Parts: sequence; C-alpha cells; structure tokens
Amino acid sequence: MENTIKRLAVLGSTGSIGQQTLEVVRALPHKFHIVGLAAGKNTDLLAEQAAEFKPRFIYYQDRKAHLANVEYELLSLEDMARHPQVDTVVIATSGKSGLSPTLAAVKAGKNVALANKESLVTAGEIIINEAKLNAAQILPIDSEHSAIWQCLHSETQKATQIILTASGGPFRHYSPAQLEKVTVEQALKHPSWQMGRKVTIDSATLMNKGLEVIEAHWLFDMPYENIKVLIHPQSIIHSMVEFIDGSMKAQLSYPDMRLPIQYALSYPGRLPNPQLPRLDWSTINKLTFEQPDLDAFPCLKLAIEAGKRGGTYPTVLCAADEAAVELFLSQRIKFVDIANLVEQALEQHQAIAHPTLEEIVAADAWTREKVSNIIKGRDR
Amino acid sequence: MENTIKRLAVLGSTGSIGQQTLEVVRALPHKFHIVGLAAGKNTDLLAEQAAEFKPRFIYYQDRKAHLANVEYELLSLEDMARHPQVDTVVIATSGKSGLSPTLAAVKAGKNVALANKESLVTAGEIIINEAKLNAAQILPIDSEHSAIWQCLHSETQKATQIILTASGGPFRHYSPAQLEKVTVEQALKHPSWQMGRKVTIDSATLMNKGLEVIEAHWLFDMPYENIKVLIHPQSIIHSMVEFIDGSMKAQLSYPDMRLPIQYALSYPGRLPNPQLPRLDWSTINKLTFEQPDLDAFPCLKLAIEAGKRGGTYPTVLCAADEAAVELFLSQRIKFVDIANLVEQALEQHQAIAHPTLEEIVAADAWTREKVSNIIKGRDR
Repeated sequence: MENTIKRLAVLGSTGSIGQQTLEVVRALPHKFHIVGLAAGKNTDLLAEQAAEFKPRFIYYQDRKAHLANVEYELLSLEDMARHPQVDTVVIATSGKSGLSPTLAAVKAGKNVALANKESLVTAGEIIINEAKLNAAQILPIDSEHSAIWQCLHSETQKATQIILTASGGPFRHYSPAQLEKVTVEQALKHPSWQMGRKVTIDSATLMNKGLEVIEAHWLFDMPYENIKVLIHPQSIIHSMVEFIDGSMKAQLSYPDMRLPIQYALSYPGRLPNPQLPRLDWSTINKLTFEQPDLDAFPCLKLAIEAGKRGGTYPTVLCAADEAAVELFLSQRIKFVDIANLVEQALEQHQAIAHPTLEEIVAADAWTREKVSNIIKGRDR
Repeated sequence: MENTIKRLAVLGSTGSIGQQTLEVVRALPHKFHIVGLAAGKNTDLLAEQAAEFKPRFIYYQDRKAHLANVEYELLSLEDMARHPQVDTVVIATSGKSGLSPTLAAVKAGKNVALANKESLVTAGEIIINEAKLNAAQILPIDSEHSAIWQCLHSETQKATQIILTASGGPFRHYSPAQLEKVTVEQALKHPSWQMGRKVTIDSATLMNKGLEVIEAHWLFDMPYENIKVLIHPQSIIHSMVEFIDGSMKAQLSYPDMRLPIQYALSYPGRLPNPQLPRLDWSTINKLTFEQPDLDAFPCLKLAIEAGKRGGTYPTVLCAADEAAVELFLSQRIKFVDIANLVEQALEQHQAIAHPTLEEIVAADAWTREKVSNIIKGRDR
C-alpha cells in the first residue's frame, strides 16, 4: 500500500460524496491518482475538477457540453468502471444510475467503493454473486456500513447481530400532527450530517435507514432478524456489531463522510490525514439511545418488510421513494405522503422472485408510472 | 480451535477471577480441561474445585493441609506454570505473588492469560522482553485491556491513542471533606463490578485505573502521553482505541468478567456461551463520560507519574498501595491516607532504572518496611 498509488475513477464526482472523495485525494496526493471523473449535469464543476486532477477519462450527461482547456477521453460510465487502468471505482452517483456501472465494475473484478444505496438494495443478489464470481471487493462508503465493516475486520467468526445507528433525523419526537405540516426547508435541515437533498429527505423519513438495513443484509450476509436499528442522535457511534460470545464492537467518530470514504480507499490499511477530525472526549459528555418510532416513521417498517419479502419489492420501494421525494421537493405532495405513496406502490406490485437485471429495470419503470398515475388520479 | 481442548492451569483458583474462570470452563467443558489448580489459604474451596475438575496438579499455601478424596500431584506455582502439559496459564493470583509464576510461564513460551496487575506494573519490561524471546503470548484478562486487545485485533497499524474507561468508583463527585469520612464498608461497595477486596478499594481510589495505564503501556507498547483515562459510570464501554485516520473502536458489554476471561481462553476465536449476558439496547438509554478528578483522586496521578518515571517506581507504587490498602481494610488508616502513604513512599525512594527481578523484589521489601515505619512513627 505505502509504495503504490491507487488509480481511482470517481463516478458522481460533483455530488456530495464525489466532492468529499476528491477532498480526500487532495489531502493524500501520493496515495491516490484520479484517472476518471464522471458527472451528471454539473458540467461547470466537472470542468474545474478536471482542470485540477487532469483525469484521462471523463463522462458527463450533457451531450452538448465540452470541457474547455483540458484534454480527456470521453467514456461511458460502464467503460470507465471496467477500464484496466482503474484500480478502484468510487460509485458516488445517486439513484438508479449507479446500478449499471456498479455491475460493470464488479464484473471486471474491481475494488468497488460503493456509496450508491440503490444498487445493493435493488440488485443485491446479482451484485454480491457477481462480486464472488469475479473476486471483486465491495468497499462500503456509507458511514454505518463502514463502521460495521471496520468492526468485523479480521474477526474469525461471523457476527450474531448488527445494530445500525440512526440520528433520527430532524423530526425525531414529532407527533403525527406535526409531521403533517413539515416543510421542504425543515426536512432539508439534517441535525448532524451534511448530505445531498435526496438522502437528507430519506434521513428525515427514516427510509434511508431502511435502505441501509437491506444493504447490510447483502453486504454482511446477515438475516434481517439480526439487524436492528437504534436511534442515536449524536451520530458518534456509527454502528455496532455483536459476536457469538456477546461482546460488541462499535466504531466511533464525528459525522464526517471523509473518514468512511478514506477507509474504503485505503483498505485494508489506514492512512494518516490531519484534516480528519479526532473525537474530543473532554467535550462529549453523553451518548443517548432510543428505539425508533415505527408508527411515526412508517418508511423504516416498509423498507424492512420489502427487504424481507425480497425479489422486486426493494426495487419498487426505491423507485417509489425516489419519485415521491422528488414530488415532495417540488412541493406537490406532503412529507407524510412519501410513505403513503411507497406503501401504495408496494401493495399494488406483482413481485418477481430472484429478478434479472431486466426485470429490475422493468419493476423500476412500472413503479414510477404507478406513482405518477396515483398522483394524476389524486390531482384530478 | 474447534477440535482441540486447551489444557489450563488456574493459579489463584479460589479468588474472584479464578472462580469465574472455572465458571467459564464449566460452561464449555468440551473446549477446556483443567490440569492444574493453585490457591492460597482457602483450602476448603480448593478441595471442592479439585473434586469437581480433577486436576492432575495442585498447589496450596497451607503446608499442613491435605485435600481429602482427590488424587493429585503437589507442584510449586512456577513448576505448574511451565509444565509441558499446560497450554494456557491463567494468572489470577492477586498482589506480588503473581510475578514469579508469570515469569516462569512466559519463559516456557506459554499462553499467559493475565489477570494479575502487579506483574506487568512492577516488571513489565522484563516480562514483555521474555515473552518476545520465548514466543509467549500474553492474553489480558482485565476488562479494559481485553477491550483494547479486541479493538486492535488484526488492525495492520498501531493505535494512535488508547482511552481506558473507568466507572469512577463509589465516590465519584465526592468532595475532599466527604472522602475524609469514607468507611471500609462504603469503599467495598462498587457500583458496577463484583470483585475482590483489594481491587475494589483500588477502584475507589482510582489507583486501579492508574495501574491499568501502566499495564496498557507495556501490553500495547503505547507511550504514556497517548493513554487517556475517561470516567464512564455505566461500565458498558470497556475501553476505546484511536487509529491514525481518527477512527475509533470501542468494545461494549455488561460488566461481567467472564467475557474477558473467556476471550483470553478462546483467542483468537470466540465461543458461544449462553450464560454470558447480551446488551439489551431497549434498556440502555444513555452512556455518560466525564474527565477524572485528579485532585480528589491523587492515586491516579501518582500511578501515571510512577509509570512515566519507570524503573523501580512502579514497584514502590504497587507495594505501598498494597500495604496501605491492607491498613485501610483493617481500619488503621483513613481512605485518603492510602494516597498519602503511596506518595510518601515514592518521594523517599531512590529509584533504579531497568531493574533486575532481584532489584524489584528488594524495592518491594524496602517499600513495605518504609510504609510500616511511617505508620509506626505516626502511631507513636
């Protein structure tokens, strides 16, 4: 590790996780080299990043755009993810666009630093099987899964239980009446994490934690019965693992995504980075815990149920949530309607067990149309 | 691990750690076999243990005693510790009597499950060097050191900081005036741990935590500057470790010595034991932390200073504390006099750097006489 430079492709480099990945690379220039950057619509920021990191490969959605003053080769997300000059692919795109490049990277046997939740949630079975077949390593970037992964590192036996911690979001202890009146502005103010808009809303509904339960199921081959969610508002303990002797391990740090990003990039070693904050125990006087309120936050319950039922249900969960969050952000539905829409889509879905990629894509499309129809019907 | 039975010698089998070691063995009869038991004066309990576990080797202090109805071979502590039929030696004796058998076990290249604090505190340099020379493995049984050891397990880099947690004992937040009036009965009531008398008093003065700082220094090759003590009254987090990237790991469980004992015996694996309690997070709603009050509890400061100064200072610390705790338990001195006596002994000591075993024994004897003389002078 010390003497080699890891070559990275960062897909979704202009998003929150992508930008923080580049911060880590900026802090450790002798450890990592950016060979590929891919963005969606933010071509201006991508151009700045390209000017700084001079990647050989670039991808952007905007067909008419061109990055001035930099030389690059335009590649598709999938071709970048499987390119022989790439050691580690950082999947920092949000939503369903992460699935195809994740699969390409896994099939090429890459190290896949995975921040995109939807890939594992919708196609966990396919991705994990392909990873095993192709000796690809999936390196979780979510703070919770990174915590579990750090706690499990080199333990010789499997864990008996995983406890995913959750901040509880901005509406912890809100009554149903209060939740009815929640505004977009309120929902976008997360108490402990700075994140993208979609994941911030998902944190407020606890859908995010539900998706993480499904991810944990696939990443750590853990039955749903042995994955628990615990509200921990300070976001210092990022998750915990229980072993067969009853001993538990926890990973702790301030909420800062650069740490799990860096751990995924430096794994199996760790790297010193003076920019990463260290816990100051002279100022931390308590850590609190409470059980999640599944009645006030039905998204968590819906997600765990969809995970347990498996097949295309998690795809419907993801797609309905993505569509519903967009509707909420554009102020067309209320905060509490997010869960209602997801629940209706799940109820009306005819699931397929062990779906192929095509069936997953079809279930996704079905769901978005279904949500759209529900809204149109209601609007009429 | 699964298919072999580890052969154990338990030195100090009638004490608190010894009895709990036998509880673990009783719960896992197909994993461990008792080949040796050694006790001090409690020959009655030793006879019961011998009747149950049928060890081949026995040691007891009482020259006139004989265990009825069991067959055994009488061995010295040292001969038992180095016997070829012993795989793991559990050193559960208290005070200075642990040093000589610990050294014998280490020189014989055994696995040494070490609960005796004084060995490492007084002769850490000698023991660690001999362990390296003879490929002996020291397996810490203290809950704090077990926690650190579990957190460090298979990390590829050294820790940057160790945080030893402490319950704070029964007199946390006591004023100097209140501490003046503390009775033996009060000091023997520990809020979270059931332990022997000596270590319970040491927990009340925080001397115990000071000794643990010195142990941690030797066990984990950690500079004193990077070992911190943090008061955590619930005794759920048993210690924490910080890594070069700022990430921390903690080990958590209810306060129950059987877990660290079992981990030392099962290392590097873990074993299922239904008798060990599991954390119930529906009932744990907060973990609290505060800085130790070094003015109210000078023993902690004295211990860390003695550790930093090294040489025979830690021996003087240990011996003076052992003598002072005995005087307190027999109600000849006040609780706060324990620290005073230790401080006086340290001040008057002419230290030797890198002492030999003989010099350590001599420093121990010097200290006990010194404490005795101070008391006589005061009594006069």
